[in-house]
Amino acid sequence: MSDNTFGQLFRVTTWGESHGPAIGCVVDGMPPRIPVNEEEIQKFLDKRKPGQSRFTTQRKEPDQVKILSGVFEGLTTGTPICLMIENTDQRSKDYGDIKDKYRPGHADYTYMEKYGIRDYRGGGRSSARETASRVAAGALARKVLGMGVRIKGALVQVGEHEVNRDNWDWDQVDQNPFWCPDAEMVPVWEKYLDEIRKDGSSIGAVIEVRAQGVQTGLGAPVYGKLDSDLAQAMMTINAVKGVEIGEGMNAARLSGEQNADEMYIDESGRPNFRTNHAGGILGGISTGREIVVRFAVKPTSSILTPRATIDKHGEETEIITKGRHDPCVGIRAVPVGEAMMACVLADHLMRHRAQCG
Amino acid sequence: MSDNTFGQLFRVTTWGESHGPAIGCVVDGMPPRIPVNEEEIQKFLDKRKPGQSRFTTQRKEPDQVKILSGVFEGLTTGTPICLMIENTDQRSKDYGDIKDKYRPGHADYTYMEKYGIRDYRGGGRSSARETASRVAAGALARKVLGMGVRIKGALVQVGEHEVNRDNWDWDQVDQNPFWCPDAEMVPVWEKYLDEIRKDGSSIGAVIEVRAQGVQTGLGAPVYGKLDSDLAQAMMTINAVKGVEIGEGMNAARLSGEQNADEMYIDESGRPNFRTNHAGGILGGISTGREIVVRFAVKPTSSILTPRATIDKHGEETEIITKGRHDPCVGIRAVPVGEAMMACVLADHLMRHRAQCG
Amino acid sequence: MSDNTFGQLFRVTTWGESHGPAIGCVVDGMPPRIPVNEEEIQKFLDKRKPGQSRFTTQRKEPDQVKILSGVFEGLTTGTPICLMIENTDQRSKDYGDIKDKYRPGHADYTYMEKYGIRDYRGGGRSSARETASRVAAGALARKVLGMGVRIKGALVQVGEHEVNRDNWDWDQVDQNPFWCPDAEMVPVWEKYLDEIRKDGSSIGAVIEVRAQGVQTGLGAPVYGKLDSDLAQAMMTINAVKGVEIGEGMNAARLSGEQNADEMYIDESGRPNFRTNHAGGILGGISTGREIVVRFAVKPTSSILTPRATIDKHGEETEIITKGRHDPCVGIRAVPVGEAMMACVLADHLMRHRAQCG
Amino acid sequence: MSDNTFGQLFRVTTWGESHGPAIGCVVDGMPPRIPVNEEEIQKFLDKRKPGQSRFTTQRKEPDQVKILSGVFEGLTTGTPICLMIENTDQRSKDYGDIKDKYRPGHADYTYMEKYGIRDYRGGGRSSARETASRVAAGALARKVLGMGVRIKGALVQVGEHEVNRDNWDWDQVDQNPFWCPDAEMVPVWEKYLDEIRKDGSSIGAVIEVRAQGVQTGLGAPVYGKLDSDLAQAMMTINAVKGVEIGEGMNAARLSGEQNADEMYIDESGRPNFRTNHAGGILGGISTGREIVVRFAVKPTSSILTPRATIDKHGEETEIITKGRHDPCVGIRAVPVGEAMMACVLADHLMRHRAQCG
Repeated sequence: MSDNTFGQLFRVTTWGESHGPAIGCVVDGMPPRIPVNEEEIQKFLDKRKPGQSRFTTQRKEPDQVKILSGVFEGLTTGTPICLMIENTDQRSKDYGDIKDKYRPGHADYTYMEKYGIRDYRGGGRSSARETASRVAAGALARKVLGMGVRIKGALVQVGEHEVNRDNWDWDQVDQNPFWCPDAEMVPVWEKYLDEIRKDGSSIGAVIEVRAQGVQTGLGAPVYGKLDSDLAQAMMTINAVKGVEIGEGMNAARLSGEQNADEMYIDESGRPNFRTNHAGGILGGISTGREIVVRFAVKPTSSILTPRATIDKHGEETEIITKGRHDPCVGIRAVPVGEAMMACVLADHLMRHRAQCG
Repeated sequence: MSDNTFGQLFRVTTWGESHGPAIGCVVDGMPPRIPVNEEEIQKFLDKRKPGQSRFTTQRKEPDQVKILSGVFEGLTTGTPICLMIENTDQRSKDYGDIKDKYRPGHADYTYMEKYGIRDYRGGGRSSARETASRVAAGALARKVLGMGVRIKGALVQVGEHEVNRDNWDWDQVDQNPFWCPDAEMVPVWEKYLDEIRKDGSSIGAVIEVRAQGVQTGLGAPVYGKLDSDLAQAMMTINAVKGVEIGEGMNAARLSGEQNADEMYIDESGRPNFRTNHAGGILGGISTGREIVVRFAVKPTSSILTPRATIDKHGEETEIITKGRHDPCVGIRAVPVGEAMMACVLADHLMRHRAQCG
Repeated sequence: MSDNTFGQLFRVTTWGESHGPAIGCVVDGMPPRIPVNEEEIQKFLDKRKPGQSRFTTQRKEPDQVKILSGVFEGLTTGTPICLMIENTDQRSKDYGDIKDKYRPGHADYTYMEKYGIRDYRGGGRSSARETASRVAAGALARKVLGMGVRIKGALVQVGEHEVNRDNWDWDQVDQNPFWCPDAEMVPVWEKYLDEIRKDGSSIGAVIEVRAQGVQTGLGAPVYGKLDSDLAQAMMTINAVKGVEIGEGMNAARLSGEQNADEMYIDESGRPNFRTNHAGGILGGISTGREIVVRFAVKPTSSILTPRATIDKHGEETEIITKGRHDPCVGIRAVPVGEAMMACVLADHLMRHRAQCG
Repeated sequence: MSDNTFGQLFRVTTWGESHGPAIGCVVDGMPPRIPVNEEEIQKFLDKRKPGQSRFTTQRKEPDQVKILSGVFEGLTTGTPICLMIENTDQRSKDYGDIKDKYRPGHADYTYMEKYGIRDYRGGGRSSARETASRVAAGALARKVLGMGVRIKGALVQVGEHEVNRDNWDWDQVDQNPFWCPDAEMVPVWEKYLDEIRKDGSSIGAVIEVRAQGVQTGLGAPVYGKLDSDLAQAMMTINAVKGVEIGEGMNAARLSGEQNADEMYIDESGRPNFRTNHAGGILGGISTGREIVVRFAVKPTSSILTPRATIDKHGEETEIITKGRHDPCVGIRAVPVGEAMMACVLADHLMRHRAQCG
């Protein structure tokens, strides 16, 4: 996989910077004769779109997607699909501070050390804008998986505040600005994030993405594990620092008796598991149970409190990141996590077909 | 990356089953003229070797490595290096139960669903024996990185018992059967695991692997992130359910002020960070600070308590996994985690050279 | 390499159909801080542009390239470079015949058999228009190689008429519509192709591409041979049926005495070869001598003579391919061959750096 | 594809040098539940085995293959298959001349320039012995293709002497030491090669490989063309300098009328082609007609006539290559060409399944 391509058979190559003329992706490997149109893709982009509530960046972007290739008379042709999203709100402002100073917690310093050059405008390639391309690709991946596979994400933790899983209600998720599945937690987060926003501070979060209806047998032993590809996928999302499958880090606290998912034959006469500590994956291969992935997003370090840093001349200095403020970048990571789940599953579905027919 | 190959430029392809004639790997992309001999590789294999204490499986394997190609007169030639480890202790016993029943928490069921066939002897390809090949490859990866890069792993949690980081002492790690860096924790784990062993139970664990001396600039934005490749690498290790970089899942609880690693110019006149919440990686690229990865290993479900399961005929039944018992598989994952870290870093070092010279 | 990506480290992914809104490519792996602008790329696109003489298709396309990403303030940033060329002359005509009938010698039938759908407008993805993206990528590849490497192509045979190598003059190549290096051959081809054009017929051709100044050591043994990648590269160009390195097919007629390139120490004190039967490559690795590749392009079967064929309903019928006529598609393959040579060399230069530093 | 791996989904990684302990390959991606045993693989290795007639090298190698993994109870398991062939006849002689001098026409000089080291014993990695691994892998590839696909190769030209295609008889091919399909040509080649052998000279040859029964639709447009992968595959065989598909280089001499393969509906009611100038591939995709590939093998430069060369100290000198002599290396390339054809087709069959189901 090259630095900007994701997947082996369902291959997504993204391109574009935050303040260039456009961003986009090329999806190669898409099966033929699948109905695809811009509206369907747009639906998912709109979920991720910035400026939808006071809790996310105020950048105004229509994020209008254009299909440039690979679709003919409403059907995929099996040739590469290029999707383009033009950048419109690139406030041609003075980047003064950001231009010369390295923002702590950002890629500014490491980019400069690696490439000796960086597009400092809005973070360039490391901007979360790149994830719009992923969401567009994810919409195509869902088409490959078909209606039988349902992928849904939710925000389950903001700072110290975790949702109560007994209150979990998928219908809630689309009815609040946080993708929160726990109605009781919504007002708590609202109050909490308003304070953080007023302080010009920021906070981390945990996203959970689940996939139902995934057939048994996707993934492979050793280096083609479904869970290792999911871990990689989620870790490629900006600001992610941890990934968990099923019990995740908590598995360290469990005994073999507690952790083993016992099997039985269910009413439909099919093999089933009494529990799902495994998160739907055993030995790197899907079990047929719900696939459960969680990932933690760190707080953005674009805050109003001055932080000590250095500039490109090697001088010590201070920085305050002004401009559009994002108190909890984790919120907008939910649709991105869903998209990555879809891409990984589509890729593995095709890989499984290739070897096991 | 194919299902059994890891890495892009430093490419490791492993092969072999637990009870076949041999296991091994082919390392392709190894730079030329590097001194390599079997003794150096053996040193690392001996660390991982089973049966070294009562806390790990009693399978007796010398794990003697043979270099079959790619080394001439003690130096690498730039051609593929094939390493082979013959299986010796493959007790040709009656596999009765395991042959027909699916062990809960194992890959038995998913393998059968995917491939319609499985080598049930000792787990076949999903056996932890495969990791011996990784350790051998890791020894070569360390050679690519050179003496300046120091990679070391430790066991930091067993069940509920976490090490006290104030007691962290790298010298301790090689002086106890747990790779434990906290001398005070050793007797605690000893007592705890003896009980688990007597009960025929098992417990999970957390491993931490660190790399010092890694240059700034390894890794790439978006899909070539150093941390996403590390997450994938660790998640390919048997039984791993969670991976963390730096603050990991805890990043969700932090504010921007707490999490941002402030920069300064250190005494040597070089840019440096006051803290390392990032775990040595920003925007997917190494910062020059210590790289810190943690991963959680679930408890093996090979336990003496009977578990409900089904057999290959679709009948409900029970299983007790007899034979060699491994109370805490996490212990032997430490040298494997080190090896994966070495492979990922070697691969990224070569990728960095290719693009940035 | 996926179906629409070429190269391992210098990776070119092309997208777009003949009659879609645009075509283009994403170049991933481009080293940073290289000066790049649209004018330089355009220079090469103009060489390939259709409708420049009566001997090539009359389709009118400005082939104006736009850089959408990866270049900042005139320098490459190391992030993917997306190049887009909008389609302008897509005569919205009635495709009647081509819509339902399979043109012999074209991909119409095989596309339909493979994908069950095809964009019949101008051949869709199989149109030679795709090669414009390659020429644009080739311009970037030349930048990676630097000024020291000179890549030049020429047309050396049209039908039975071969150039006289004693008359070879590189300066001639840009002074006639055929990229012909033999001034005496130009009028012969002119007369010959005028007749073919009047008859509504077509003819094959042979292109030769050479690279001077390539360092010794590019390429690798076995599956990474420089010549095998060149053969693949040229064979991906539309209508190519044969590829030769150095002596090519003629090597079968030579004896060991005739074919072996003897070595000596030249006046500069460097190792050199008295002859270059090998075409600059031995054991898959560049020798430092000029790299010489030839490939044969078949005549287009878009001719005015009716040919027997079938339609998509499985009925036998006849077809005459009207519309823009291309008597010798080989002519426009010259700049494409140069571009592919540049891409392969850039890729291998980066691969060599990665392993051998 | 890395330097020592061939194929995307049917992936063959070969390893080993001429005079190391063993050579072999790892075949990854093999579909499960396919009956495989060493005898079947051995059958193909025996065809390629050296020393079978006075016209090929006299090195004595049993080339006994061992299956080390991936096969359980006679069936493939879907895990990587490692095949090993031990080297037995590695005459531990004094390599004097070859050790320090670069043989013209061999990879000695280029290896040294690239890697700064080489295993000079028998050519090390560049020895034709590596092709034994390919033949073994090819035997597995044939299993993937099934009985319906028949792959057969023949020697069609030795020096100036070409077979008469009117005499083509596949049954002849296995009845002479040349894989010659023309009974009348056998005595001619015999006499011709005896002279060459007596003179200690060598000569080039052309091999033709055909595949019957290949379904329509394998391959893909642009960079996944079946013919470009075949060209690459054949060009990776030692000493190959040219590759042709169907009409090959001769396509340059044809008119559109001559070259276009007209279509019709055959007696079975299926679409068919009256001719097969295309060699079974249109637009990179198989047509269902016989696939025809030819490649030219240069004469070995290991000859008894002294040739001018240089040594590793940069001194001009002369060399005579003594030891086992191979008057026409092209002969033993026939089974290798068959194997590469099988591997490419198996890979594309799996790629087709993945995308088009």
